[in-house]
Amino acid sequence: MKTRAAIAWEPNRPLEIEEIDLEGPKAGEVLIRIVTTSLCHTDMFTLSGADPEGLFPAVLGHEAVGIVEEIGPGVTSVRPGDHVIPLYTPEDPNCPYIKSGKTNLCQTIRKTQGRGVMPDGTSRFSYKGKMIHHYMGTSTFSEYTVLPEIAVAKISKEAPLAKASVMGCAVPTGMGAVRNTAKVEPGSTVAVFGLGAVGMAVIQGAKMVGARRIIGIDTNPSKFLLARNLGADDCINPKDFAEPIHQVIIDMTDGGVDYSFECIGNVNVMRSALECCHKGWGECTVIGVAGAGEEISTLPFQLVTGRVWRGSAFGGVLGRSQLPGMVDEWLRGDFSVDPYITHNMTHEQINTAFDLLHAGESIRSVIHFRPQETMLVNSLPGKIVPA
Amino acid sequence: MKTRAAIAWEPNRPLEIEEIDLEGPKAGEVLIRIVTTSLCHTDMFTLSGADPEGLFPAVLGHEAVGIVEEIGPGVTSVRPGDHVIPLYTPEDPNCPYIKSGKTNLCQTIRKTQGRGVMPDGTSRFSYKGKMIHHYMGTSTFSEYTVLPEIAVAKISKEAPLAKASVMGCAVPTGMGAVRNTAKVEPGSTVAVFGLGAVGMAVIQGAKMVGARRIIGIDTNPSKFLLARNLGADDCINPKDFAEPIHQVIIDMTDGGVDYSFECIGNVNVMRSALECCHKGWGECTVIGVAGAGEEISTLPFQLVTGRVWRGSAFGGVLGRSQLPGMVDEWLRGDFSVDPYITHNMTHEQINTAFDLLHAGESIRSVIHFRPQETMLVNSLPGKIVPA
Repeated sequence: MKTRAAIAWEPNRPLEIEEIDLEGPKAGEVLIRIVTTSLCHTDMFTLSGADPEGLFPAVLGHEAVGIVEEIGPGVTSVRPGDHVIPLYTPEDPNCPYIKSGKTNLCQTIRKTQGRGVMPDGTSRFSYKGKMIHHYMGTSTFSEYTVLPEIAVAKISKEAPLAKASVMGCAVPTGMGAVRNTAKVEPGSTVAVFGLGAVGMAVIQGAKMVGARRIIGIDTNPSKFLLARNLGADDCINPKDFAEPIHQVIIDMTDGGVDYSFECIGNVNVMRSALECCHKGWGECTVIGVAGAGEEISTLPFQLVTGRVWRGSAFGGVLGRSQLPGMVDEWLRGDFSVDPYITHNMTHEQINTAFDLLHAGESIRSVIHFRPQETMLVNSLPGKIVPA
Repeated sequence: MKTRAAIAWEPNRPLEIEEIDLEGPKAGEVLIRIVTTSLCHTDMFTLSGADPEGLFPAVLGHEAVGIVEEIGPGVTSVRPGDHVIPLYTPEDPNCPYIKSGKTNLCQTIRKTQGRGVMPDGTSRFSYKGKMIHHYMGTSTFSEYTVLPEIAVAKISKEAPLAKASVMGCAVPTGMGAVRNTAKVEPGSTVAVFGLGAVGMAVIQGAKMVGARRIIGIDTNPSKFLLARNLGADDCINPKDFAEPIHQVIIDMTDGGVDYSFECIGNVNVMRSALECCHKGWGECTVIGVAGAGEEISTLPFQLVTGRVWRGSAFGGVLGRSQLPGMVDEWLRGDFSVDPYITHNMTHEQINTAFDLLHAGESIRSVIHFRPQETMLVNSLPGKIVPA
């Protein structure tokens, strides 16, 4: 079949929308029509060429929501018409990592996913006979995409497809890091480095679990209003201080925070995030993805005196068994996804989404594949970017 | 009063035994007669001059057992005749860190302890009118020493004083790191880097909690027999392999260990210890103390993919409330301290203890202040070093 897709032909070149070929789902695979997708820093990071695992040409995109159109042989857990979220962190119940009960890092299709192909080693995408890579096993910048069954989470049909895409990465990554990875307790103090969508979700998650004081840190103060609205008690800009930011936070909190989160991917900030933690028990969770070969470092004394350095991927969330429940929490009103959505646009405007994110002007731009169906919703959060 | 003490006059100079002056205990302090003390790498590290906090002249020593001789005003928890273990990590129930219930790192006297003086800012030790520093708040290389009440743990009088000194550092540090810091579960795989006394205690502790497989790593294969006797299933020498040791361990364990422990103080080994951990859940606990300014580093990807880097001091053990119970476990026969004690000698032979430790020939040398009383015990483990 044919599908409209935004192609990343090479690093640092704007995406180009083309009608490309898509093979239908093979055994254990499903064909999804993407309804909305949103742009995450990771897509931008790969397009920049800094991602050591970036492959070109490729269909980028990994934060989306869609509808199952067709299922391949042997697929039993979803059927056409189901609403689903693509999972770049799949969940195969037969994977030893998943069976361990200790991690969400399913390994079943990791190798082929990293090579930009489906589990059988081939791509479903091509353009004029030339193979185009899948990306993060999801490739949601295409109106139609094919995914392994273990990489789709079936969600409630009550979830508005106009804005559910942020449940595909930002919200579970941040909120999950708070709940599943750091396990922040009520009454804790929390520092959040980087007030993009993931940082905002960390704030929202920390507020939900009853954190006593939440400090947001960003060099872009235009993020502070939203951060405060989501629950940040203080927002600080490292540029406003002569001392190192970790010392500022230690001074603000009588010794450091109980939990910190790095939501940028900057190795120097990862160090600050560790060192602003309270001696004896403070824990730093690294969420951001650093550039190729960049290393984190610190004095081991920081650890020996009780700080903990850990990391989180997809918020430690099991995509198929836990993400649908998080969607239900949203639908119940336990939290709102509206604040994440600052812009709405058509597929053709996708390069504008990159520009807005790069300029720090957006939190999430939602790309509507059929704007006539989803951009007309009265309650749509965020601006509609003029064509 | 007068006391015989081994003085460290300056870095890298053998200790000299002198009769020095010791002031009696002030309010909240106790005078202890040290019966036996043993030599730990940390004493050697400070004597080498590499310890950034090392002060000279000083009475070193921090792993010991003794008897309360006299108490200062206001002391209520111990009385003369009590058997006690000096605590370089004290436990003040009024310290906010201790009250938090999250750490054993009591801060009450940390600053003065770091400056080599008692909590009132002065030293009890002097030689011909010249002040001599306390060390780690314990200074157990003196037959008599003065400690704050919060820095002594009262233990059972059943504990043989001839060998109880190792309960002052090595055993609780290693065993506590397994139980309190890493919280190793039954069935776990464990890698132990550095087979000195602390590493041996990690092995013993891991065996006690039911670890499934314990791997000891050391460049000195003469440690392997004892490590195996204490519970190590495999002992490996990094020099025997062409690949990096973390890769060797990953290959041996089908993906890495559940828990690793660094018991050396080498920042490169600390990295290996993290990177040999299993993706998704492996946790590295740093116990060793690195040289001044030395940093640890790794790719943040190691953390984001689920490994955890933490540290442990004094095994996370609360000295006054938990160490006496560990002594009782020893007395019940839950474990033996005999394997740690490779040598026994007199106070006058203390520099030999440094030589043996430096040469990797000893695990622990126990120094007997009154050999006529404690070195005559039939069941004394280890060799008696000829005078």
